Amino acid sequence: MPTHRTGIRTLAWEGDHLVLVDQTRLPHETAFVNCRTWREVGDAIRAMKVRGAPAIGAAAAFGLVLAAGEIGAAERQAFLARLEAAAAELRGARPTAVNLGWALDRLLRRAREHAGDPSALRTALLAEAEAIAAEDVEANRAIGRHGAQMIGPGERILTYCNTGALATVDYGTAFGILRTAHEEGKGIQVLACETRPFLQGARLTSWELLQHGIPAALITDNAAGYLMSRGMVDRVIVGADRIAANGDVANKIGTYTLAILARHHEIPFVVAAPLSSVDFALPDGSGIPIEERAAVEVTHVGGRRVAPGGMPVLNPAFDITPAHLVTAIVTETGVAAPPFLQSLEAQRAVHAARRGGR
Amino acid sequence: MPTHRTGIRTLAWEGDHLVLVDQTRLPHETAFVNCRTWREVGDAIRAMKVRGAPAIGAAAAFGLVLAAGEIGAAERQAFLARLEAAAAELRGARPTAVNLGWALDRLLRRAREHAGDPSALRTALLAEAEAIAAEDVEANRAIGRHGAQMIGPGERILTYCNTGALATVDYGTAFGILRTAHEEGKGIQVLACETRPFLQGARLTSWELLQHGIPAALITDNAAGYLMSRGMVDRVIVGADRIAANGDVANKIGTYTLAILARHHEIPFVVAAPLSSVDFALPDGSGIPIEERAAVEVTHVGGRRVAPGGMPVLNPAFDITPAHLVTAIVTETGVAAPPFLQSLEAQRAVHAARRGGR
Repeated sequence: MPTHRTGIRTLAWEGDHLVLVDQTRLPHETAFVNCRTWREVGDAIRAMKVRGAPAIGAAAAFGLVLAAGEIGAAERQAFLARLEAAAAELRGARPTAVNLGWALDRLLRRAREHAGDPSALRTALLAEAEAIAAEDVEANRAIGRHGAQMIGPGERILTYCNTGALATVDYGTAFGILRTAHEEGKGIQVLACETRPFLQGARLTSWELLQHGIPAALITDNAAGYLMSRGMVDRVIVGADRIAANGDVANKIGTYTLAILARHHEIPFVVAAPLSSVDFALPDGSGIPIEERAAVEVTHVGGRRVAPGGMPVLNPAFDITPAHLVTAIVTETGVAAPPFLQSLEAQRAVHAARRGGR
Repeated sequence: MPTHRTGIRTLAWEGDHLVLVDQTRLPHETAFVNCRTWREVGDAIRAMKVRGAPAIGAAAAFGLVLAAGEIGAAERQAFLARLEAAAAELRGARPTAVNLGWALDRLLRRAREHAGDPSALRTALLAEAEAIAAEDVEANRAIGRHGAQMIGPGERILTYCNTGALATVDYGTAFGILRTAHEEGKGIQVLACETRPFLQGARLTSWELLQHGIPAALITDNAAGYLMSRGMVDRVIVGADRIAANGDVANKIGTYTLAILARHHEIPFVVAAPLSSVDFALPDGSGIPIEERAAVEVTHVGGRRVAPGGMPVLNPAFDITPAHLVTAIVTETGVAAPPFLQSLEAQRAVHAARRGGR
C-alpha cells in the first residue's frame, strides 16, 4: 500500500480488493479493513470505518468495481441492471454527502457508455475509480494552495470534525489549507473541536495535527464560543458533505452553530470542498437529507455507557449552514465569494473547460 | 440519611460528618462519600464528587463545621485564625461559583459574632450550615414556582448541564422549574444537552429526568443550533455559577454559545439561580475568574483515552454570558427582567426585608 506524508493512505486498491484504514480504531491503533465484496464496502461506509465525503465517494467507486466482478458473466442489460442495484444500495449507505452518489453516477455512466465485454468493462470501471481517487488528491492540493492565500501570518484557526487525509483519498480539504499554510511558514495555530458524538476532531484531526507538527490545541465543541469572545479565533475553516447551488452547506452537526458564533463575533467562516461536493441540481439546502444516526453514539463513548439506560436520544449527524453565514467557499478552482449561485457556477464552468482541455 | 423524591439526597450531615452522593459514579452506581475532615470536603469539591454552585456552597459550609471540630481547644483569636485559614483553602477549591465563598463568609461572620466557647461555637456553626442547606431547598422550590409561571402548555425546553437535586441541596434551580411545570401538568418536553466534557447532562440530568418521568431527549451540545433552526426549541433555561450585579452570567462552558443561538433564533433565554449566586460586589462579568480544568477531562472519557497522547488541550470550565443575551433571571424572590442592575437589586431588597421580618 503506498504511504503518503501521513504515513498511511486512507484507501487504496490492491490488485483485486479495496484496503481501508479502519478509522474507528484510530488513534489507538492503525488497523486495516480488506473489502473483497461490494457489500463489505457498504458495511464499512455505514459503520464509519471510512468516513469523510470525498473518501466515501472514492470507496463507493471501488465498491462498484467489486460489484462488477461479483456479477460475473451476464447478458449486457442484466449486467447493467445488477450493477445499478448494487449502486443503489451503496448510495443509501450514508444519505447526506453528495460525493457518494456523484462517484457512483460517474461509474454507472462509464458502464453504460462502454461497448466491451464484462471483463473489459470491469477494467474500465477500475480505471475510472482510480481516476476519481487521483483527482481527489489533486483537487485537495489545489484547495490547499488557493485557501492558504487567504491566511495571514500567525492566524489562529478553528476547525471542526476531520477534513484531513483521512476524510479524503489524501491531503484533505479544510485540513489541506491548514497544512499548506503551515508548510508555507505562516505560523498558524489551530484549535481543533473534538466533534461530538463521533469525536473525529479528538481522535483523527488531533492525530493528523501531531503528525504534521502543526501547533494546535484540542477543545470541546462548546468552548468555541468562549474562545471567540476572548479574541482567540481569527478564522473558522470547515469542510462540507454537500453544498447546494446557492451555497447552503451541509456538514457535520455543530457546523451551523460555529457559523452563527463566527457571524456574532465577526470572524470569517470559510468552507473548503472539491466541486464534487457541490450538488448543482439542488437549489438550496432544504432538499439535503439529514442522516439520523444510532442513539448508542451519544449514550456510549468508547464502548462504555455514559447515559442511563432508557434515556431517549436525538442524534442528527449533519446540519445545514445557510449561505448568508458563509464568507467564502474554497474549491480546487479557486475561492468563491458570495453570491455563491453565480460564483460556484463560474467555478464549474472553469473546471469543465480545464477537464475538456486535457 | 433522609431521602427525597429523587430517592437520594445530594448531601446531608449525619451526626458528626458530611455524607455526599459521589456524582462522578452516577448514573452507573449510587455511591456515597463520607467526609470526616474539612480537607476531605475540599478534595470532594475539587474532584467534582459534589458539584453545582448551591451544592458546593452547602458542602463547604459543613466543611467549615468539620474544621471547627478539628481545631479543638484554642485561644479565641488563634481559633478564628485557623478557621479562616481552612475557609481560604476551601474557597480556592473551585474559583468560579460564588456560592462557595458566600457560604463560607456567612459561617465566618457567625463565628466572629459568637461569644461562646469553641464547643458552643461549633454547635452554632452547624446550625448555620443546616440553615444554609434548608434555605437552599426552600429557595429552589420558590424558583420552581416563579419560573413555571412563564412556561406555556407543551413547551419544548432546552436545558444544559445539571441544575437538579444533585446540583443543589435538593429540588434544583433550572431543573426545579422543569419539575414544577411538569408536575403542574403543562405537558413540557425537555431537550437535555450532554454537556461536555464532564457530561453532567448525559449522566445526571438524564437520570433525574427519568426519575421524574419528564418527557425528554438527550442531545449532543452541538445539536442545539440545528434543533433551534428546525423550530424544535421554545425556550432555553439554564442555571448559574455566579451572576454579576449587571446580570452577566457565569455558567458551565457552552452556556454562552446557547445564549447566542437563542438570540439568533429569537428564543427566550432564561437563567435560574438563588440570590446567593448573585455577586452584588461585582459590577459585571469581566471580574469573574474562569476555572481551567485538567486536560484529562477532554482527552479521556470514562477513564478511556480518546485523543492521541501529546495533544495539547484548552479546557475552560465556564464562560460568561453577557446580560444583553439574557431574557430573564429567576430567583426565589421572583422573575427579574432587564435592566438587571435595577431588578436584581430590587429582589435583594425584597429578600432582605423577608429575612428581617422572621
